[in-house]
Amino acid sequence: MATNSEANALGYNLQVDYVVCYSFANVGRSQAVQQLEKLLRALSDAGLQTEIRQGDESSLLIFVRASKKRLRRAVYRSRVRDWLYGIRNAEPEPASAIEPQTEAERLRVISQMITLPIEEGGAGITPSHGEWEKVTAVFPLHDVETNRKWMKEWSKKTFLSDDDLDQIRNKFGESVGFYFSFLQSYFRFLAFPAIFGFSCWFFLGGYSIVYTIVNSLWCIIFVEYWKRQEQDLSCRWQTKGVSAVRTNRREFKPEKEVRDDSTGEMRGVFSATKRMQRQLLQIPFALLAAIALGVIIATCFAIEIFISELYSGPLKTYLIFIPTILVSALVPTMSAVLMSIATKLNDYENHETRDGYDVALTQKVFVINFITSYLPVFLTAFVYVPFASRIVPYLDVFRLTVRPFVSKEHASAKRSHFQIDPARLRNQVIYFTVTAQIVGFAMENIVPYVKQGAFRKYKAFNKKRNGRPGQNGDKESPERKPIIAYDDPIEEKEFLARVRNEVELSEYEVTDDLREMCIQFGYLALFSPVWPLVPVSFFVNNWVELRSDFFKICMEFRRPTPLRADTIGPWLDTLGFLSWVGSITSASLIYMFSGNSQHGPNGEPTDIAGWALLLTIFFSEHLYLLLRYAVETAMAKLEPPFSRKERAERYLVRKRYLDSTLRADAEDDHDEDDTVPISGPPGISRHSLEDDARRSSSHETDPAERFWMRQRGWEESVQIGAGIIEGQHDDGDGKKEQ
Amino acid sequence: MATNSEANALGYNLQVDYVVCYSFANVGRSQAVQQLEKLLRALSDAGLQTEIRQGDESSLLIFVRASKKRLRRAVYRSRVRDWLYGIRNAEPEPASAIEPQTEAERLRVISQMITLPIEEGGAGITPSHGEWEKVTAVFPLHDVETNRKWMKEWSKKTFLSDDDLDQIRNKFGESVGFYFSFLQSYFRFLAFPAIFGFSCWFFLGGYSIVYTIVNSLWCIIFVEYWKRQEQDLSCRWQTKGVSAVRTNRREFKPEKEVRDDSTGEMRGVFSATKRMQRQLLQIPFALLAAIALGVIIATCFAIEIFISELYSGPLKTYLIFIPTILVSALVPTMSAVLMSIATKLNDYENHETRDGYDVALTQKVFVINFITSYLPVFLTAFVYVPFASRIVPYLDVFRLTVRPFVSKEHASAKRSHFQIDPARLRNQVIYFTVTAQIVGFAMENIVPYVKQGAFRKYKAFNKKRNGRPGQNGDKESPERKPIIAYDDPIEEKEFLARVRNEVELSEYEVTDDLREMCIQFGYLALFSPVWPLVPVSFFVNNWVELRSDFFKICMEFRRPTPLRADTIGPWLDTLGFLSWVGSITSASLIYMFSGNSQHGPNGEPTDIAGWALLLTIFFSEHLYLLLRYAVETAMAKLEPPFSRKERAERYLVRKRYLDSTLRADAEDDHDEDDTVPISGPPGISRHSLEDDARRSSSHETDPAERFWMRQRGWEESVQIGAGIIEGQHDDGDGKKEQ
Repeated sequence: MATNSEANALGYNLQVDYVVCYSFANVGRSQAVQQLEKLLRALSDAGLQTEIRQGDESSLLIFVRASKKRLRRAVYRSRVRDWLYGIRNAEPEPASAIEPQTEAERLRVISQMITLPIEEGGAGITPSHGEWEKVTAVFPLHDVETNRKWMKEWSKKTFLSDDDLDQIRNKFGESVGFYFSFLQSYFRFLAFPAIFGFSCWFFLGGYSIVYTIVNSLWCIIFVEYWKRQEQDLSCRWQTKGVSAVRTNRREFKPEKEVRDDSTGEMRGVFSATKRMQRQLLQIPFALLAAIALGVIIATCFAIEIFISELYSGPLKTYLIFIPTILVSALVPTMSAVLMSIATKLNDYENHETRDGYDVALTQKVFVINFITSYLPVFLTAFVYVPFASRIVPYLDVFRLTVRPFVSKEHASAKRSHFQIDPARLRNQVIYFTVTAQIVGFAMENIVPYVKQGAFRKYKAFNKKRNGRPGQNGDKESPERKPIIAYDDPIEEKEFLARVRNEVELSEYEVTDDLREMCIQFGYLALFSPVWPLVPVSFFVNNWVELRSDFFKICMEFRRPTPLRADTIGPWLDTLGFLSWVGSITSASLIYMFSGNSQHGPNGEPTDIAGWALLLTIFFSEHLYLLLRYAVETAMAKLEPPFSRKERAERYLVRKRYLDSTLRADAEDDHDEDDTVPISGPPGISRHSLEDDARRSSSHETDPAERFWMRQRGWEESVQIGAGIIEGQHDDGDGKKEQ
Repeated sequence: MATNSEANALGYNLQVDYVVCYSFANVGRSQAVQQLEKLLRALSDAGLQTEIRQGDESSLLIFVRASKKRLRRAVYRSRVRDWLYGIRNAEPEPASAIEPQTEAERLRVISQMITLPIEEGGAGITPSHGEWEKVTAVFPLHDVETNRKWMKEWSKKTFLSDDDLDQIRNKFGESVGFYFSFLQSYFRFLAFPAIFGFSCWFFLGGYSIVYTIVNSLWCIIFVEYWKRQEQDLSCRWQTKGVSAVRTNRREFKPEKEVRDDSTGEMRGVFSATKRMQRQLLQIPFALLAAIALGVIIATCFAIEIFISELYSGPLKTYLIFIPTILVSALVPTMSAVLMSIATKLNDYENHETRDGYDVALTQKVFVINFITSYLPVFLTAFVYVPFASRIVPYLDVFRLTVRPFVSKEHASAKRSHFQIDPARLRNQVIYFTVTAQIVGFAMENIVPYVKQGAFRKYKAFNKKRNGRPGQNGDKESPERKPIIAYDDPIEEKEFLARVRNEVELSEYEVTDDLREMCIQFGYLALFSPVWPLVPVSFFVNNWVELRSDFFKICMEFRRPTPLRADTIGPWLDTLGFLSWVGSITSASLIYMFSGNSQHGPNGEPTDIAGWALLLTIFFSEHLYLLLRYAVETAMAKLEPPFSRKERAERYLVRKRYLDSTLRADAEDDHDEDDTVPISGPPGISRHSLEDDARRSSSHETDPAERFWMRQRGWEESVQIGAGIIEGQHDDGDGKKEQ
């Protein structure tokens, strides 16, 4: 494994480990050179070899390669740290014998060599931050060959094997590995509800109780299964407990410097209560988000209902698109605004660690996503259907605006004929679980790719026309001398072109992909009883998703720096939360819509009794919690294979150590014994012995010593004991013989 | 500390560490002596000094003292094991320098020396089990002086100090220490609701919303606080993670022996799925318990209502006691039957570890306790009050039995006049939270003490009359020779008499006391809105409880063998569960009973709407869960002092190690460098350098080597970079100058 990855790492990309982009735009020449010198010296001091090539017109590409010896030492140091934090079981071998085990470890350690502070053995480069502001990017290069090979292979498979996942992890690190592993588990798990959902749809239609129960149970089992699976993976990838090793945020602003009493170091602190007070702002933020997005969505929803179901004036065919256009325009805009507020709030909370920051941001992002994704369906299910006949007349207010086109009678006639569209809910669910997924796929994969291609073509065209790459557009004057080809050596031309392309890509954030999957899971948990084909759609979608996400990482993003992880993080809680909320929504959907015969003349369910609905919810929720507890307990008792292996390893390490302690004891045993065993002469009588002891010790003052001197050695004790037993048995025997 | 405890351990009880009771009743003489020899040899081999004295007429007392050297080694071994399991941070000092830190550690280690298997360095004695069946007890002796002193001191204090708790822990071990710590925290926390409850009772009366909300919040905070406190204590007492070191149950019956692939050892396994199937029996068990106890309680309840509120015939004053007598007789009997079923079920589940067994048993015990403790109040609140007027007429069935005494008119007149007693619920809550606590206290502390005294007097009397202790009663004939005084040396008489008394006591189970407190907490969480003085009563009660429990341990039980613990175990979950259920019950109580004016003519609340009740419950419960989440999150961010200290220590250990690694690196730095930095001659031009490199390497086949040879050393890179920057800046400057 080691040699293989090593060979790989050396075999492609001309052995370049990392590319550091150094921009000298907007900086004076001498200052730029000075900075560059400092940068190269820092890299070299950290044990990194460098080569410089030209980037675009205002940047340099610094290619970095780690010296073998220094890399080995850095790997060793990283492993020692892991060992001390309990991530590794065994103490690592000495530095001289060590090799990075995987490409991901190699790249992660080199990234540490570049970014760790100098005191901790790195070069202290902090891209785009502080004194290294001009270092715009630090990233490894894609392994184009392998990526292409994998994409080809996977397109022919249904399920990725564990080996495939291991390989992803070896290339891209545990963090990306965890995402693909999750996606794969989720996809594999979807097979069951897909089949079951299809059967239910075929035989029972929508709103089937059986499907709902099975679906809820499936959600519980999946979430709990994934929790176990996560643990197992973290054992297998040796990252268990890695989240305990927290990296501090550079942006953290300490309130004051405090000398730590126990460690004796100065460290910045920020009072936890103060942060909590700031975090309370999340509540108004959540309210704001709910109101802002809620108003937009509800308004568009109302307009849509009005136009599609009440209005029948001219231009209806065109007007019908207004709400869709409005939603498509306003919701993303508002989301973006809210996102920027969320980010600001999160910055304001001033988290000390990266993990803390990410978790807090995830929570806020989730609030926004929850509203944008599920609110429309909630509105249809729990407002439109039960209350439409009462609310719709108020939509009349719009009539005023369109009155010129509608005759009064017409409108009122329409109104009295108003019928709730019972298929609306189903259509909406279908829209969100099929159409939106496809649109999302296109937006995520095809559009950026096309855009990229177009952009490059445009740039090339510009370059040809202007003789320069068209990045700082306006500043350039057309009469610049043409540098179409950089001053590259011919044999490196292709390579450098590829590197320059990769520099232009953006950075990959695994959390975005995770969010997408969690939101998808939410539709399944919350609304799939409406249309049991939801899991079928997702099953198909996720087959594509897995491959397209890989394609995306390879083609549309810079290769991510490998990060370690032992969990998918806060999204795990999100899954649990969604499946919980699902137990409430599905129960109420079933109660409200199952048995269509009960619907009134307006298509409205007539006999929804508040108490019965609430009782259904109460039972469903508590049944859910009970089942979850049972599944949790059961799962906790089934130990996954790698966890067991890990435990056995830990046990062995301990046993070896303890055995050696015991052996040391045994060897010591001979020269021991502060209680000298005296084997008393045979046939000695109890009284003579004890009297003897009593006599010899009666002069000592310590009663305890006298007590313990009565019987010297265990053999004497046996004799005394035997005496007592015999005395008693004599009595007993005597009695029996009587 | 060490010397102090050491001095203590040696200063009283004639330096006896443990007493081992060896019974030779019903065994042949030679066999008994043989067994005794084996026992003493085993003890001696394990490094324990022994002295034998007579016990009662068919047993021996074997006094055990650990040899200093062997004790030290055992302590060392135990600490190494702790270190390997991550319980201790620092590697322990070598065996020769080690001393047990506290009396509890000393006794715990000696207990291990006695009971651990021989392979693990103990004597392998398993009291009352297997080949050591005749060893009836192994226990340390009470420190009478200190116990008395503490009892005296504490009776003058309101709160125990942390030092007091530390001392309890040092004497009785962490398990008992945790109980007292919990009791103390709980008591201290009760001060607030006691004051607040009193004010609410005074100003607002029962069923106050304010009180209910505050009470619920208090429950959440207390449970979360205790979770943190537990962690803190486990850091302070160095037992964090001690539950990871599991002790196997001796009674575990493996299904088959399997060779463990990774450790290479044979070990017994029992399939987890099989155990889970067996655990499913818990469901019928819980149903059985609910039905059995429910029927008894409901019947007695019905009888009581009938007699007290319907019946007015003769003998009413006496008949009124019938239900009380029935409950007092039947419920404990049924509980005992259920307990024995629960124990059997638990044995059948065949747990591998003691912890697993205890947790499973606790769950079953809790089911029984929940029903016996809370069902009566539930019946009153949720059956009697809302439905009494509908149900009571059916109680008529009893009229048949008492008809002879009642005139028909009388009974029916009574029935039509039937009024729900609105005070019944309050009276019942008062009964359970005041009267029952006092009765419980008496049953727990005074009765056994009186009984013990009486039993001893009876024995002495018997002995005098028969000339023998009266234990195997019938067998004895009166003409036995009198052994009133055992054959004891005069100076040991008093001591041995005390030891013989302690042998007769039973073993202390800390879980019983914890259960009592949890059940008490349950009343507070579930029903205290009915009568806000509940916390006042508990506050007073628990002041006494803390002292009386200590008294109980000292006087009515053998001194417990110190056990380590890092939690109060499954009872913690129970607390959380009760406070959760409390959010439901209190909300419904408040909804149903607050505002007495709404009550109908029967004293029955008239306008209980199902949907409103359910909505109240729904909101209350989810508000509870939300608040709990918030409190949990907030608490998690406030690190208790000893946790911080522990973390700092761990950090220091790591840092020291890492620093040494880094230093080793630094020293290594000079003889390093596989990339030889060539400082090129000053003023060298970029092209000449690169050309040079190109020329020199063009013959090599490896393009990567050629790539990396272009710039040798970082100084060269700087020059190349500077060249590129200058080239670009020339353009830029040129442009600006244009």
